[in-house]
Amino acid sequence: MRSYAVRMLDLSAGSRIAVLNAKTADSLGVVPWDRIRIKNGRQRATAALVEITKSLVSENQIGLPRLVAQELSIAEGESVSVEPIPPPVSVKHVHEKMRGKKLGREEIYAIVRDVVDKNLSELEMAAFVMAEHYKGMEQDELLWLIQAIADTGTRIDFDKPVYDKHSIGGVPGNKVSLIIVPIVAASGLLIPKTSSRAITSASGTADTMSVLAPVEFSAQELHKIASKLNGAIVWGGGLNLAPADDAFITVEYPLQLDPEPQMIASILAKKLAVGTDFLVLDIPTGEGAKIPTSEEARRLGNRFIETGIKLNMRIRCGVTYGGQPIGRAVGPALEAKEAMQTLEGAGPQSLVEKSTALAGMLLEMGGKAPKGNGQETAREILQSGMALKKMLEIIEAQGGNPHIRSEEIVVGSFKHSVTAPVDGYVTHVSNAAINEIARATGAPVEKGSGVVLHLKRGEKVSKGEPILDIYAERQSKLEQAYSLVAKLQPVTIEGMLLEEIPEY
Amino acid sequence: MRSYAVRMLDLSAGSRIAVLNAKTADSLGVVPWDRIRIKNGRQRATAALVEITKSLVSENQIGLPRLVAQELSIAEGESVSVEPIPPPVSVKHVHEKMRGKKLGREEIYAIVRDVVDKNLSELEMAAFVMAEHYKGMEQDELLWLIQAIADTGTRIDFDKPVYDKHSIGGVPGNKVSLIIVPIVAASGLLIPKTSSRAITSASGTADTMSVLAPVEFSAQELHKIASKLNGAIVWGGGLNLAPADDAFITVEYPLQLDPEPQMIASILAKKLAVGTDFLVLDIPTGEGAKIPTSEEARRLGNRFIETGIKLNMRIRCGVTYGGQPIGRAVGPALEAKEAMQTLEGAGPQSLVEKSTALAGMLLEMGGKAPKGNGQETAREILQSGMALKKMLEIIEAQGGNPHIRSEEIVVGSFKHSVTAPVDGYVTHVSNAAINEIARATGAPVEKGSGVVLHLKRGEKVSKGEPILDIYAERQSKLEQAYSLVAKLQPVTIEGMLLEEIPEY
Repeated sequence: MRSYAVRMLDLSAGSRIAVLNAKTADSLGVVPWDRIRIKNGRQRATAALVEITKSLVSENQIGLPRLVAQELSIAEGESVSVEPIPPPVSVKHVHEKMRGKKLGREEIYAIVRDVVDKNLSELEMAAFVMAEHYKGMEQDELLWLIQAIADTGTRIDFDKPVYDKHSIGGVPGNKVSLIIVPIVAASGLLIPKTSSRAITSASGTADTMSVLAPVEFSAQELHKIASKLNGAIVWGGGLNLAPADDAFITVEYPLQLDPEPQMIASILAKKLAVGTDFLVLDIPTGEGAKIPTSEEARRLGNRFIETGIKLNMRIRCGVTYGGQPIGRAVGPALEAKEAMQTLEGAGPQSLVEKSTALAGMLLEMGGKAPKGNGQETAREILQSGMALKKMLEIIEAQGGNPHIRSEEIVVGSFKHSVTAPVDGYVTHVSNAAINEIARATGAPVEKGSGVVLHLKRGEKVSKGEPILDIYAERQSKLEQAYSLVAKLQPVTIEGMLLEEIPEY
Repeated sequence: MRSYAVRMLDLSAGSRIAVLNAKTADSLGVVPWDRIRIKNGRQRATAALVEITKSLVSENQIGLPRLVAQELSIAEGESVSVEPIPPPVSVKHVHEKMRGKKLGREEIYAIVRDVVDKNLSELEMAAFVMAEHYKGMEQDELLWLIQAIADTGTRIDFDKPVYDKHSIGGVPGNKVSLIIVPIVAASGLLIPKTSSRAITSASGTADTMSVLAPVEFSAQELHKIASKLNGAIVWGGGLNLAPADDAFITVEYPLQLDPEPQMIASILAKKLAVGTDFLVLDIPTGEGAKIPTSEEARRLGNRFIETGIKLNMRIRCGVTYGGQPIGRAVGPALEAKEAMQTLEGAGPQSLVEKSTALAGMLLEMGGKAPKGNGQETAREILQSGMALKKMLEIIEAQGGNPHIRSEEIVVGSFKHSVTAPVDGYVTHVSNAAINEIARATGAPVEKGSGVVLHLKRGEKVSKGEPILDIYAERQSKLEQAYSLVAKLQPVTIEGMLLEEIPEY
């Protein structure tokens, strides 16, 4: 077998690759995405997917990402041998799922393990997710998927029951975790909240929290903070709770693909990893939300609940109104400000309602409030200032300023107000348009950027009154976002007289 | 906007990429497979898909494939600006197809153009092909796909009607083109045969022909050779006839995906590109072939015929027996040898039958034989030596040895014979096993390697008689292939008495 000198390359996006010169590939009879086995002189071997270059490495070289080189304990310039090998058995299982076959436990574990070990190409991961999308997953396949994703990640064990809250997402301005976590923690229940950064939205919970305090912690650090204070709000992506899920998301995102089994597995595997015993799931429902109708919300909620039972996780679902943004602010700093205002006792009513309703469900599950009285108890904890105090403790423990007040939170210095062109009532606020405009301001990368709505559905407005304010950190972004307002019409205003009967 | 120094990289597998440092990507708010617009200082701009590295390029650099750099007329070290942009409209159409929407003409053209221009990622191309697989394509969508693939490639115009022959493939040892082309060309009909290299088989027609003569030519060269001799057998991949199809194949292959619309489009677009007026399509049918039953073969054949009518292409389909290898030889040199033996008058009967039957259909379409008499005429041309003479002319025109005889063709010098363990009859020859064994010998990369079957289905054998010979260019490959024989049981031999009634 010929040998090749190793060149270090770190182009591995999601999979374990080896870069071969086109002539080397020809002589080996391999094409892109074929597999090769790479052996060093000391009998250690590993597999990689073939990428091909005409110039990056020469015919005598092989380009390896650091990860692969480390497994072979091999350094730049050392030599390795190479031979073509067939794909791992997990690839066969992906193909079987594509053809509609129900997979077994071992088959699903094989796929998930190879995803984590980067043995599957992004194409193969996408094919698996697309097969789920088109063919669905039976209930036991879903359970195995959840367990496999959790088993291949880090587990965190707490000494007492773990309470948690999760939203299936899709609605702008959903900062309720920053209010729910301190309410629940203040009640004495443990709620170690892990959250995500925005992928397509203008702010994820982790983005919003990062305005108030650092959010990147190890599993040990999260354990320490949450055990001490009963609460924390950290970025889950740094904890390696579900590395398989992280990998699946990298292919789901560009394809705008989020099949139900994968969505359920993504949520519940991460909950399993932190040992969640009691979960409240927020299912925002309505036009422009992920779930359009309450029938669909109920069906999905029941699937979550049933899956939870098999996982020893008690789940309650809250079907909430998701047809317009939650609260008024969209964008990391603006949302953090609104959440702090709410904790300080001056938040918008709808945000208080939603936060206390969901928090109340957890209080009831944890025996901190009698059944039917949870929201009332949550409201008392909020109004008493105990939730604010808890939030400031959490902020301090995570390394933020424990004396921060909402008015001190800095937002973008470039601002433009959009006013109502006519008298009337707000008949519609578009989630998609508000999200697109907020993204155009620079959110979530530019934390002070975003949008504040002055009006929500059903509210009355007079011509010339402000409808929404756009905030940005840069003039150019402000202009880009403003130019979208006319195009996207985020807020619809109509006269009170919607129709005349009989038609005249 | 910040600027970045260009570093040349040529890692672009199938799409137009730009490599950003992870920190640059964070500051721009982009993740892998997002799009960016890259501008040089002279107002030229182009788009690329984001790949991310931690070390290959620094925060001040951007890695660009030569193709992208050339479009910007920019050299190593020059500076460019970068901004995130939304995906092209074709991506929206891919997502629509994923959701089951029927696409219009312009939408399909947009996708195919962006495939050719490398604006779609491999993930997006795979998603489109998988959507075809799961959702199907209506007849007019298929027509637009064929036309779009042909329109975005090179066209070759001949001065007279073009005849052609194609097999949908899947059966080992199918060297019939090397016999059909000279028969048809010798009759005076023009048959400029473009063919492919093996992807998963042990020899494609282009691999087999390359044993006898070079097969890589430009469109002009093919035009010249075929116009002069009425025939040629070249590699189609070098002609840029259907660059979109070449791109789709790079994602279909690792996913073992070949949805019917894409398969039909792949074949007919390339035929459209060379101006085919009359096509005979070979549909090998049987256990272990692509098409298992003759009902399925008839349905597929009719879809081809109807599609052909809309494209002004007359198509006749030959449903042939594909349940075992065609002829006896599998592997480039062994197949070239068998084809030449057949032209010399000493080929196996089944190969003569199949070749003359399909050639005869073309002779009838071209008026060179009365209906029902085509095979007889083809046989006469073969037996007269006119086909051999024509083949040697074609070999000469393509730069091969015009005096070559079958016995001079060099095959692998390492050989092992497998013998029958019992007396009996051959009840089954497995296409998949023969293919896998032949690939293990080193074919098609090592041209002298492969397998020769001594027995076909229904033939009688005595214990100890040779069943098949394995040829290889290297001892190690010979052993690997031989070790597969016991495992895969390529030939099943059973006693004549299959069952006893009544059971005793």
